[in-house]
This record gives sequence, C-alpha cells and structure tokens, in this order.
Amino acid sequence: MEQEQKLTADQIIKFLEERNFKELKEELENLHPVDLVDAMEELDKKQRMLVFRLLSKEEAAEVFTDMNSDMREELLEALTDSELKEIMDEMYVDDTVDVLEEMPANVVDRLLMATDEETRKQINTLLQYPEDSAGSIMNIEYISLRKEMTVADAILKIRQVGINRETIYTCYVTEKRKLIGVVDVKDLLTAGESRLIEEIMDENVIYARTLDDQEQVANQINKYGLVAIPILDHEDCMVGIVTVDDAMLVLQDETTEDISIMAGVSPNEDSYFGTSVFQHAKNRSLWLMLLMLSATVTGEILGHYEDAMAVMPVLITFIPMLMGTGGNCGSQSSTLVIRGLAVGEIEFKDIFRVLFKEIRVAVVVGLMLAVVNGLRIYIMYDQNVMLAGALGLTMIAVVSMAKCIGCVLPLLAKKLGLDPAIMAAPLITTILDTCTILVYFNIVTAFFHL
Amino acid sequence: MEQEQKLTADQIIKFLEERNFKELKEELENLHPVDLVDAMEELDKKQRMLVFRLLSKEEAAEVFTDMNSDMREELLEALTDSELKEIMDEMYVDDTVDVLEEMPANVVDRLLMATDEETRKQINTLLQYPEDSAGSIMNIEYISLRKEMTVADAILKIRQVGINRETIYTCYVTEKRKLIGVVDVKDLLTAGESRLIEEIMDENVIYARTLDDQEQVANQINKYGLVAIPILDHEDCMVGIVTVDDAMLVLQDETTEDISIMAGVSPNEDSYFGTSVFQHAKNRSLWLMLLMLSATVTGEILGHYEDAMAVMPVLITFIPMLMGTGGNCGSQSSTLVIRGLAVGEIEFKDIFRVLFKEIRVAVVVGLMLAVVNGLRIYIMYDQNVMLAGALGLTMIAVVSMAKCIGCVLPLLAKKLGLDPAIMAAPLITTILDTCTILVYFNIVTAFFHL
Repeated sequence: MEQEQKLTADQIIKFLEERNFKELKEELENLHPVDLVDAMEELDKKQRMLVFRLLSKEEAAEVFTDMNSDMREELLEALTDSELKEIMDEMYVDDTVDVLEEMPANVVDRLLMATDEETRKQINTLLQYPEDSAGSIMNIEYISLRKEMTVADAILKIRQVGINRETIYTCYVTEKRKLIGVVDVKDLLTAGESRLIEEIMDENVIYARTLDDQEQVANQINKYGLVAIPILDHEDCMVGIVTVDDAMLVLQDETTEDISIMAGVSPNEDSYFGTSVFQHAKNRSLWLMLLMLSATVTGEILGHYEDAMAVMPVLITFIPMLMGTGGNCGSQSSTLVIRGLAVGEIEFKDIFRVLFKEIRVAVVVGLMLAVVNGLRIYIMYDQNVMLAGALGLTMIAVVSMAKCIGCVLPLLAKKLGLDPAIMAAPLITTILDTCTILVYFNIVTAFFHL
Repeated sequence: MEQEQKLTADQIIKFLEERNFKELKEELENLHPVDLVDAMEELDKKQRMLVFRLLSKEEAAEVFTDMNSDMREELLEALTDSELKEIMDEMYVDDTVDVLEEMPANVVDRLLMATDEETRKQINTLLQYPEDSAGSIMNIEYISLRKEMTVADAILKIRQVGINRETIYTCYVTEKRKLIGVVDVKDLLTAGESRLIEEIMDENVIYARTLDDQEQVANQINKYGLVAIPILDHEDCMVGIVTVDDAMLVLQDETTEDISIMAGVSPNEDSYFGTSVFQHAKNRSLWLMLLMLSATVTGEILGHYEDAMAVMPVLITFIPMLMGTGGNCGSQSSTLVIRGLAVGEIEFKDIFRVLFKEIRVAVVVGLMLAVVNGLRIYIMYDQNVMLAGALGLTMIAVVSMAKCIGCVLPLLAKKLGLDPAIMAAPLITTILDTCTILVYFNIVTAFFHL
C-alpha cells in the first residue's frame, strides 16, 4: 500500500540520474498528486520539469492544480503553448479560475489563450464573482436531471457525461434552469429502474446563493453534513455547486485568518514560509505601532501617580500582576465570544445573556484570585491587613471589569459590521492596562489617603 | 423551497395549540432534522415530546442523533422501552456510540438493553477505542466488494445492502478482510457492466489506522479531498471508515479547543452556554492563578529597581509600553507558529528556518518601532537624546527577544509531546514581562549610571 512506501524526492532523483524514465513513470502513476507535489518541492527546476513531462495529461492537470503559485509560474515559463493547452483542457473550470486568480496579468492572458472559447466564457463569468463569495469557489460542472426521467435514464445520463463531472454523488433536478429537487446517487442505485426521478427526488433542498459569503456556505455544508450544496443566482436559476472538499479548505483558511487577526497580525493568503520577511514585518507592525502608542497613554497615567508610588514604593511591585491578570481575564472572555460568533453559537442578540454569565464567572474567579493574592500579601508583607484588603478589592474590580469589557467588545464589533477577531488579546489587553491602572490607584489612594 | 419558509418554533406551537397534528406532521416531514432540533430547543418539555412522537421512526432517529445531550436525556426519561428500541434500531452504530459516550451510566444500560445482541457487540468494540482516536469516530457500515465481482454484481450488491449504509460513495475491495483497493461509485456507473472490479479498482489507497489521532485523520481527508477514508486495525484488516462530515466536525472541535487553550482556558466539550458558571470559572482559574503568581516574580524584580525609579521617575512611564510591545510581538510569533504546526506547514525540524525568519522580521519591526518611539521621546522629553537612545535600544532588544522566545517555545512544546497551544499569548506574555523588565533596567542603569 502506498502510504507505507511513498516515493520520496531522493528516489525520484535517483531514477532521474539513472535515466530510468520508464520505471519512474510507473512509480509516478501510483503516487497521489498531492504527495507528488510534496516531493516535487524538494527537486530543482530542471528535475521538476522532467518529472512533470513524464505525467499523463490527466495527472499533469491534477498536479498543476495542487501546486503552489511559485512552482506553477516557474513551470508555465517552461511549457510550450500546446503542452499548456493539453493541461488546461483536462482541468476543471473552477480549478482553472482558482489558478488564474493567483497569477500575474501576462500569465493570465497566456492561460486564457490556451482554453477554448466556451470555457473562456465560463471562466470570465466565474472571475466576476466577488472574492470570498460562493460564486468564486463554485464548480459549474454537475449532473442535472429532469423530473420526467426514469432511474434508468438518469443512470444512462451519468454514464454518458459523468466522467467529466467533478462530483456525481448528488444529482440536481432542474426545470427551466430552476432547481426543483435533489437525488442522491445512492437513491438512484437502490430505487427500481423504471421509477420516475420525480417520485424519488427530495424537494426540500438546502441551497446557497452566488453572493453568499464562502464561510457561511462552508458552515452550511458542515451543519447539514452535505457532500455538495447547489448554488442559485439572483433569478433562482441553478448555476453551480460548492463541494465539501472546497468547504473544508475555506474553513481552514478562514480559521487561520481569524487566529492571525486575534494575535494582531494582518492576515495574508500565503503560507508562513511563503511570506517574505518584509511582508511579515508589514503584517505585524501596524498593530504593534498602534498598540505601542496606546500603551504610552497607560504610561502617562502611571506617571501621574509618581507621588503615591514615592510614598509607598511597594505599590509598584503589584502592577505587573494586576495588569497581567486583567489582560488574561479579558482575553479569555473575548476569545470565547469570538469563537462562539465564528461557529454561530453566539449572536449579538445574546449580549445580555453573555454579560450575565461573564459577571457571575467574574465574581467566582475574582473572589478566588483575591483570596489567594490577599493571603500571599498578608503573609509576605508583615500581616498588613489594609494592603491585603486593598489588593483583594482591586483584584475583584479588575477581573469583573475585564470580563465585561472582554465579552462586550467583540459583540459590538460584530454589530458594527467589523471583524470581531480584532477585539482579541492585543487590543483588549492594551485597553485593560489603562483601566487597571486607574482602578488600582483610585482604590489604593482612597485606602491609604495618598 | 424550504430555506425561504422554514417552520419556526412559534408555528409549531400554534399547530400544537390547535391540535392540528395532521398538518404539523406533514410540515415536520419537510423540515431538515438539524433545523427541527433548532426549533425544538425553543419548545417546552411537553411540546417537545408531542413533536417527537409525531415523527416517523427514521426521522426520530436522525433528530435524536442531532440533539444535544440535555435534550436527549430529558427525552429518554419520557420514552417507553419499545419506543426507544424502535429508534435505536434506526440509528447508525457510530452515532449510537457517540450518544452513549455522553450519557450517564444508568442511561447507557437502558440504551444497550434496547439494542439487539449483534449491535451491542459492535458498540462495545467501538467503545473500547481511546477517546480522540480514529476508531472512536469511525463508521463500521460500508460497502465491501470482492475483486472477482463484475460491475453489474457490484451495483446489485449496493442495491441490496446500500440502503443501510451511511455512505456508498466509495466502495472498498477486500480479500480475507484485507483492503486491496477502492472503487468510486462514479467508476461503477461509468464502467461497462461486465468489467471486473479488479480492473477498475484503484490500488493506491489512502488509509488510516484505528489508533491514529482523529485530528490527523481529519487532516488527511482534507489534504487528499476524500469523501471517506478506510480505517485498518493492527492486523491490516479493514474495520470501518471515517466520513468527511465527521472529519469537518472533528476539525471544528479541535480548532475551538486550540483557540481556548491559546487564550488560557482549559477546553471542555460543551458549548459556551452549555457550560455552567462554575465550570467556566474552573476552566479559567487554573491558568489565571498560575499566571498571577508568575507575575508576582516580575513585580518583585521591578521592586529591585525602586532606587533607579526614585532617581529617574520618568522610567516608570515606559514600562506599560515596553511590556505591552514585548508581549504582543511574542504572541504574534507564537500564534503563527502554533497555527503552522496545527495545519502541518511547520514541523520541529524547521526550527532554525523559523528562527532565522523571525530574527530578520524582528530587526525590521524593532528598528521601525524604535525610530517612532525614539522620535516621540525626543520631542516630548525636551530633546533628551540619551533617553530616546536608551529606549530605542531597549525596544530593539525587547522585540528581538520576544520574537525568538515566541517562535521557539511552541516548537519545543511540540518536541516534548506537549500541546503547542499552551505556548500562546498568556504564558508567552507573562514570561516576556519578566524578561522585558530585566532588559530595560539593565540598559537604562548602564546608560544613566543609576
């Protein structure tokens, strides 16, 4: 079985050096295109071209679809126009569109020249859908049936055209281009041959629209456990399907994007290693700059309490602990709310329910931290009850404030049409730093009449 | 079409009040089980039972599978043994196992009593696989073919048994229970009826093992764009499949778990609202306590520089900015590395490649922040070049340190078999707070001979 003995890049190089192309060709046929792309990454440009030219045109098309944009551009330079045309003919239209979206304009022109006119028209339609819309990731090749067909007719149709369709697991019943039902291939195989499609189709169809957000469509596929979802245009006509494999990739990319934003990094499409040092620096410095300047406000406020700290220098030592705890409490709440919003469990209308929950959690957590911290101070600072009490009270106030601000801000961001993920740790922490200092010094100056 | 006019909980209540069960039953049949569960959440216990009893047994089994454990337990109390048996007979074995894993022991006994002996044996086998293993989420119902069958034989077999199989999109060719190939249902439909399975099967099978981690298996399904992956036991015998819908749920749950840990929250299986206040408090307080106590170390170190701050009180005002920037820089790097590890882009062996990249990013970012910050200080503090220089130098040192520590710790955690996600913002920030204070005061005391 393949996994136990996957062909490695070293083995490929060995075959190439021995000029044993016949055996290499056979070995390559047994390798999954995804694994071949992995192996090709370790080859040099010349070796890569040799390997690519050994592939059948079906395989070449699949490998071309799976490789990253750098490798693809390099390959395109070396391919002749007729080789390119052969590959383009084998590719699914939606994959071609994905490839085109990543290419520089001159390469796009050359690729479009290599496709026939019919396909070019389809490609141009798909390219017009907004980025991140269902239309931009949909597949326009699917099996459509008519309701008057028998099961036998339907199977015959799949037999005739199915070879060119990326997925045939669900067939769509249309009437004047309007979607009226779906038939699972399982139903076709298990129903009597003379039964009408009309009788076995399911009329309760889950569908999405071309302009729906791709993440929302992927979540729908996940929620209902679908293999593919039909996509309708604004006139209710069926124009394509989004398949589950594309939905998984969408969810993975969207999650990576969310996590990046939550860490104060502007997301970009490329991978970690695929992003240049300057691009990394650019993605990170905007937030850092903003947060650094905001933090100077906290610093200025802290400066205002110089006199208090001069009288009671011990007050300084509690600042990192209070700021740290406040930031962590706030991040916990905001992160849970951001994730809840992303997976659709929490909505803006739940704001009071969330707030009520967080306040109760804050009381429990705040009391616990206050007691532990109060005891520590009582023991370490000569049984100073006043100090322990002031710090305990500050702790409860900071935790409560942090939990409230932490859960409310992502919900407000969502309401305002912003990405809730921007209200994660970095921004919450910076906001809370200022608030914590204010609460702390107001409490201690009152306690100790500073 | 259903989505435009989904039956709401209010409409269901209206039907129930009018005792119009006949029409309600029809409406319920047109509703997707997932949507029905959503609507049932808004009904009271009595209404829920009425609705549930109106469902056909197939629908009842699907709805039962989709509901949350609280609703399920409540329902179980009200069902008679014979009703329960009808539902259990309709459920897929893997779904039954999922249900059982969430139930208290006495309910499990009652459920097991309601299944026949054959199923009970299968359930017990599945229950023995470790949590989070491929075995624990696999489906034991799939279509297996023999290589001597013709395409017509295979279609006949699917016709006969397929109705009970959760997915028939891929069929598995076995010989003495060993997996020797796969046939896609598309190939069955498009190949000539008299061809042998042997001729059309694909022998390069991607598979996983019962004890493989479920996240790894889900990533495999994603990587290769599969609809299902076959699962082999330690003797290489095929024992089940994991389907793409289960894989999507696994990835979503694992991501939520990662994000929780990255925010310093111990993950639990339940949803945000499904988790009690005390459980929330428990999940969050462990990390908070740990980080709070670690932060006291930073406080103690800060206390050591009381004298320096007494001489130059302005030094205090830069502390929040430096600690904040250090923490944010470190979190950015650690988050990108944690995500890279999760999606399989980064591995431990890349440690020096990552480090080299982060150091270069740190130099660019550090210089930028140092210049902006230096200028600000130069302008705001009477053109004090020494102060601007000391802070600029500190900034570069802090950013570089933060980026290095931030990218290395998750990689080390991975190497040590820990979850890299624990090395996210909360812990990184706390560690960096201490380091930042040390770097800062070492630089300023040297600059100003304090």
